[in-house]
Amino acid sequence: MRYDIVIVGGGPSGMSAALYALRENKKVLIIEKESFGGQIATSPRLENYPSIEKISGLEFADNLFSQINNLGVDFELDEVLEIVKLEEKKFLIKTNFKQYEAGAVIIANGVKHRTLNLPNEEKLIGHGISYCATCDGPFYKGEEVNIIGDANSALQYALMLESYCPKVNMYCLFDHLFGDEILQNKVLNSEKIFINYNMSLIEYIGENNLQGLVFKNTKTGEIIKINTNNVFIAIGQISDNKRFENIIKLDQGYILTNNNMETSLKGVFACGDTIKKDIRQVINACSEGSISAINAVKYLNQ
Amino acid sequence: MRYDIVIVGGGPSGMSAALYALRENKKVLIIEKESFGGQIATSPRLENYPSIEKISGLEFADNLFSQINNLGVDFELDEVLEIVKLEEKKFLIKTNFKQYEAGAVIIANGVKHRTLNLPNEEKLIGHGISYCATCDGPFYKGEEVNIIGDANSALQYALMLESYCPKVNMYCLFDHLFGDEILQNKVLNSEKIFINYNMSLIEYIGENNLQGLVFKNTKTGEIIKINTNNVFIAIGQISDNKRFENIIKLDQGYILTNNNMETSLKGVFACGDTIKKDIRQVINACSEGSISAINAVKYLNQ
Repeated sequence: MRYDIVIVGGGPSGMSAALYALRENKKVLIIEKESFGGQIATSPRLENYPSIEKISGLEFADNLFSQINNLGVDFELDEVLEIVKLEEKKFLIKTNFKQYEAGAVIIANGVKHRTLNLPNEEKLIGHGISYCATCDGPFYKGEEVNIIGDANSALQYALMLESYCPKVNMYCLFDHLFGDEILQNKVLNSEKIFINYNMSLIEYIGENNLQGLVFKNTKTGEIIKINTNNVFIAIGQISDNKRFENIIKLDQGYILTNNNMETSLKGVFACGDTIKKDIRQVINACSEGSISAINAVKYLNQ
Repeated sequence: MRYDIVIVGGGPSGMSAALYALRENKKVLIIEKESFGGQIATSPRLENYPSIEKISGLEFADNLFSQINNLGVDFELDEVLEIVKLEEKKFLIKTNFKQYEAGAVIIANGVKHRTLNLPNEEKLIGHGISYCATCDGPFYKGEEVNIIGDANSALQYALMLESYCPKVNMYCLFDHLFGDEILQNKVLNSEKIFINYNMSLIEYIGENNLQGLVFKNTKTGEIIKINTNNVFIAIGQISDNKRFENIIKLDQGYILTNNNMETSLKGVFACGDTIKKDIRQVINACSEGSISAINAVKYLNQ
């Protein structure tokens, strides 16, 4: 199948890129590995997207998806394994199941969850360990829950979980919170959220289901063991670009772009959380998506 | 009055900056010269803002205004005349009526309408000459109307006016249209919109009210006179930063910024259409607003 533009990743940035490319009458395919919406779809609420006062991340993603769907986007649930430049305006995109041809490529594959890299972790995901309180929180309604993390995602998870859990324990690696002050204040003023500082997780207890967590206090050296069937981990994200390092320049795993969202390989653009940058809000990802598409269209038309 | 951050301009970029600064608990004042919402408020419909499928520019601006109003923004309808840096984190902002002190300043004053600079133009504005079809189009319901311009604004005006006017004449300086292909196609397929290429306006007829337009065909030299009581002018925008050139670096009137939206003067940030850049969509203005605010907050907190 030949497309004008193939977009790798269906989060806010990739979908915004599609929006702008479709409005220029380009034939567009988005290839998404897991589920449309990206990270934001797991966010219980989004309150800092200009002109939308309050919306769940899922609804935000759904609206964007329907916006581009109405303009005729094609999409595949598949994983891009390799991008090959055959010649100017001719790229081959190889996935798990197929291969596609495109005149230009936009990489908007976002980031993946950072894990703690402890024994049993992989095995216990979905059996007590979760990276998404929005998705899995409701399973623990009425129970005491645990969060590891100290920044926006962790704070949002805490505020969401306290609405239906009697007690929310936060475990933070340092001696203070990070993230937006407005969220920090809400968490600090909550009577249901209990913050434990200087706590480093060193062990998961349990073979097939999570049964407990073992922390070490980084200040005192004290070992603390708690019995629990759940933990929500929100300790940030890491890049996922190893498969592209043969064709474009990366910096610490993130894709290097200029202001036009051009990568080091002509005809390949990148946008959203996968690129090297300082600020990673949804509004920025959407803006970069629009810029990458406008410049990809310019590349195709010239 | 002392503020943490004073924002010059209440369009999408300035209001987005306010949104992010307010969420960090900063005391924020927006000073707007004319009316909140900026250019977008005059756009009949906005269809390329990610996750909002269709909205009028005015409603978009109203929603953003209410979003920041609920967070406690202060605002003044006044014109900023001068910004003076007294010392680090201490700026004086002089307006027509007052003066304010701020720890940091964000300039988001957008652009102003480009005019044709013909005799009588100033006098006939509001008396037949309009720069905003959204605002003034309904006055000519059922009548034949005229648009000068060839890009997105002109195309949008034409599509809006054809919904309630029997005939829409477009006068374009060159031999083709510019702007989004999706809009061009709609205009070209309309049975009510008539495009006149290679037309240069050389004279307004009328003293107190517009009575006609005189064009010169740039290819043939032919002079064409039409009798009409209206013309909508949509020929782009120009910067409005002369008053800031003593403190920050400009390039062809636009403010120079780096990726953090910092200007050449520490503590002064700029965002939106007032800065030098290639792509000027609402989504980009909002994104830059967020970046300028996040960095202004960082500047204040450090």
